[in-house]
Amino acid sequence: MEKINLKEKLSKFSDHWAPKIIAGMNDYHLKLVKIKGDFVWHHHENTDEVFIVIQGKMKIEFENETVELYEGEMCVVPKGVNHKPFAENECKIMIIEPSGIVNTGNIESNLTASNDVWI
Amino acid sequence: MEKINLKEKLSKFSDHWAPKIIAGMNDYHLKLVKIKGDFVWHHHENTDEVFIVIQGKMKIEFENETVELYEGEMCVVPKGVNHKPFAENECKIMIIEPSGIVNTGNIESNLTASNDVWI
Repeated sequence: MEKINLKEKLSKFSDHWAPKIIAGMNDYHLKLVKIKGDFVWHHHENTDEVFIVIQGKMKIEFENETVELYEGEMCVVPKGVNHKPFAENECKIMIIEPSGIVNTGNIESNLTASNDVWI
Repeated sequence: MEKINLKEKLSKFSDHWAPKIIAGMNDYHLKLVKIKGDFVWHHHENTDEVFIVIQGKMKIEFENETVELYEGEMCVVPKGVNHKPFAENECKIMIIEPSGIVNTGNIESNLTASNDVWI
């Protein structure tokens, strides 16, 4: 049975905003992402999305508020809700969502990444 | 938008082997559990199950091997696979699985807990 070490997986890549799949659970994927700077406003039409901060600090802007997440904190972005992740300094996070979800949701941008990279 | 702090949630209960739901994502639940000692051999017929160690150390016994998980490590137990979690000292973990899943799976025991306790 494979055991997955988050720090070891995080050491395997350095690019930003490009999710890496570390595990599958039924038809869901657990992904690690390093983020830095501004992402794009977007939403996911058909799914909620879990953000868990592994190391660092991030913000998620919503239309009426901004949530600040530190290490050991998480937030579930409900489906259909516009949001813009942001991190002043590099932040390492885990995302949980159905397989096949594209990071920029309804938007295509230069930050749109492959949704099928395993590490 | 609710922000969830894992340590704050963990401070709200002290019983063992009784999962507490901290978040919903689509039809899945994210749960925190404090575990200590032996659980029961069981499996979940229709779903994989994610174990992530938040603090401490645990083991998951399978029929042919034992996986030892430390803080920051995780394992996906595939559906149908018999397993027995164990922790010598108290260990704090997150479990991710579909809502409604009973902790002891196919087995009813004195460790069978409610699958609907939110904190």
